[in-house]
Amino acid sequence: MSFSFELAATDGAARAGMLHTAHGDVPTPTFMAVGTAGTVKAMTADAVRATGAKIVLGNTYHLMLRPTAERVARLGGLHKMMDWPGPILTDSGGFQVMSLAKLRKLDETGVTFRSHLDGSAHHLTPERSMEIQYLLDATITMVLDECTKFPATHDEAGASMRLSTRWAKRSRDAFVEREGYGQFGIVQGGVYEDLRRESAAALRELNFEGYAIGGLAVGEGQEMMFGMLDITTKLLPVQKPRYLMGVGTPDDLLGAVARGVDMFDCVMPTRAGRTARAFTSRGIFNLRNARFIDDGAPLDEACTCLCCTRHTRAYLHHLFRAEEMLGPMLLTLHNLTYYQSLMQGARAAILAGEYDAYCARVRAGWAEGGST
Amino acid sequence: MSFSFELAATDGAARAGMLHTAHGDVPTPTFMAVGTAGTVKAMTADAVRATGAKIVLGNTYHLMLRPTAERVARLGGLHKMMDWPGPILTDSGGFQVMSLAKLRKLDETGVTFRSHLDGSAHHLTPERSMEIQYLLDATITMVLDECTKFPATHDEAGASMRLSTRWAKRSRDAFVEREGYGQFGIVQGGVYEDLRRESAAALRELNFEGYAIGGLAVGEGQEMMFGMLDITTKLLPVQKPRYLMGVGTPDDLLGAVARGVDMFDCVMPTRAGRTARAFTSRGIFNLRNARFIDDGAPLDEACTCLCCTRHTRAYLHHLFRAEEMLGPMLLTLHNLTYYQSLMQGARAAILAGEYDAYCARVRAGWAEGGST
Repeated sequence: MSFSFELAATDGAARAGMLHTAHGDVPTPTFMAVGTAGTVKAMTADAVRATGAKIVLGNTYHLMLRPTAERVARLGGLHKMMDWPGPILTDSGGFQVMSLAKLRKLDETGVTFRSHLDGSAHHLTPERSMEIQYLLDATITMVLDECTKFPATHDEAGASMRLSTRWAKRSRDAFVEREGYGQFGIVQGGVYEDLRRESAAALRELNFEGYAIGGLAVGEGQEMMFGMLDITTKLLPVQKPRYLMGVGTPDDLLGAVARGVDMFDCVMPTRAGRTARAFTSRGIFNLRNARFIDDGAPLDEACTCLCCTRHTRAYLHHLFRAEEMLGPMLLTLHNLTYYQSLMQGARAAILAGEYDAYCARVRAGWAEGGST
Repeated sequence: MSFSFELAATDGAARAGMLHTAHGDVPTPTFMAVGTAGTVKAMTADAVRATGAKIVLGNTYHLMLRPTAERVARLGGLHKMMDWPGPILTDSGGFQVMSLAKLRKLDETGVTFRSHLDGSAHHLTPERSMEIQYLLDATITMVLDECTKFPATHDEAGASMRLSTRWAKRSRDAFVEREGYGQFGIVQGGVYEDLRRESAAALRELNFEGYAIGGLAVGEGQEMMFGMLDITTKLLPVQKPRYLMGVGTPDDLLGAVARGVDMFDCVMPTRAGRTARAFTSRGIFNLRNARFIDDGAPLDEACTCLCCTRHTRAYLHHLFRAEEMLGPMLLTLHNLTYYQSLMQGARAAILAGEYDAYCARVRAGWAEGGST
């Protein structure tokens, strides 16, 4: 099976598609659960599958430091190591080097840094990032880029984007083609339309298997993010998947899908689940709140996950108060299921040509709030 | 279904039986996973079931303080709250009051104490303990007793045992009979044969549905514990189940089964799982040990659990080094599966009349050690 993207339907700018990969198919729009260090936190791989997830994300920065890419390769690759035979997308490592590592120094060759774990020195270049992702056996490899900070002047954003473009070329050259595997370029350019145009045009020449939109959700706000999406998705090839990196809230996802995005990843559902926050069809709940202490209702009546069909809000409240691991486990399971069902519903609505009505219905549910 | 115990076979003093309860049958010998605060730590109820567990234990002390017995009752009982429709045994709360609570004061009426959580004052009497366990909807209710400390003089152990005997009578009077539910008395008497005899005789007059052996595994050592078991199990009715409280290591279990014990509980497999220690057919491993960093073998080749069939020792090592919750989750799952398979193997061996050979085989495996 060659790596390909099949567009099944459009509804306005919103798209329903199917991504074909060496490790299986992914109906889009899709949300990728984040499996930072070779595990989606608080979840067995079976539990991740039970949420409806079809593709997960691994973080190159974390994995290159521990257990190391070479070790993952010796263990048969990330799929085998984490019991996830389905598609895996890995990031390039660049974003987390800049946010987590110590003594970072960026130059034309790449970025040198010291590990936040043990202080060891590393040099991440486009070529090394591609090698690491190859060793991890990533189904989808991301180019190494610099995530332009926000705010940035036009000059700063332009210089940063052009560095990313040069690295994208080197990343493309270093990518090892394999049947059913793909590589995505990343459009940068900050909040400047002309820079986004320049970036997209340069990347299109490299003919990636897909295109990510980077440098958003970094503090610019939802309105500006949506504005940049309106501009940027139009610059990308229709027949290739589009991935909005690191986004976001359920509302962000609905809005980005409306603007032509096919793929997402974010730590939000997993991180929120560990801190007692639940995304539901009635909005966001904090299960630590005392109002749930005697609430015998399911967390989300509209949800079919194990957390919602077998347990009560009162039990979840108890688990978080007692600091039991089952609290994070159940709420992560629920949140990921909610994100998946949100994307499944979006896909069905796009196929039916009623995506706007779907979004309105979902948002009305959030506005209605909890029943307690 | 009335609460009953059916003896299927004996092999020496070892017994294979079947416990019939309102919430299902339990083949014995059996190990009860400890679900302290309404959850077996790091496990969904489905995962507990997948280990082969047929009965779990709940702790009255923890549950009476949080979420409270009355609240559990309002939520439909402990079975419903924790998604465990099978049998549940609850302890009386007495043991943990003495080990965890503050400002404990014991007198003839019961024990007064302050909660270790919020300092609130409580008075636990035999009658209140029975009421709490009734509210929790425990399939098996334990009498309130005093776990005699070790070492204790003959006088101390005698006075303590006689208080427990008086409390056992009050507990029996306060127990609400329900079809398929049972109550167990607890033999005390420290390490003194005459006191154990006196205790067992007095409890037999109360005609409990089962008998526990308390006050062991409190520092006396395995040899003395086995010696007291040799004496005590002979004092108990053949047609009633026997439960050795708070025990123990896999080797303790094999030896206690050989001496006529049918039921066990212990935090060891769950607690060990959270601290990277694995019980296996080749002995105990600490998965944090650096020797596992590149070990691509399954944790225990003889084990069919998800941890052993899907993952490597190297992955488990990685998860514990990275402090990922999946490490404790997988290792708890494995350890509980190991304990269950140990008891299942014991039952099959007793039924086949070859329990000694089974124990010899299992111990030889432990002695052989890991292959790496």
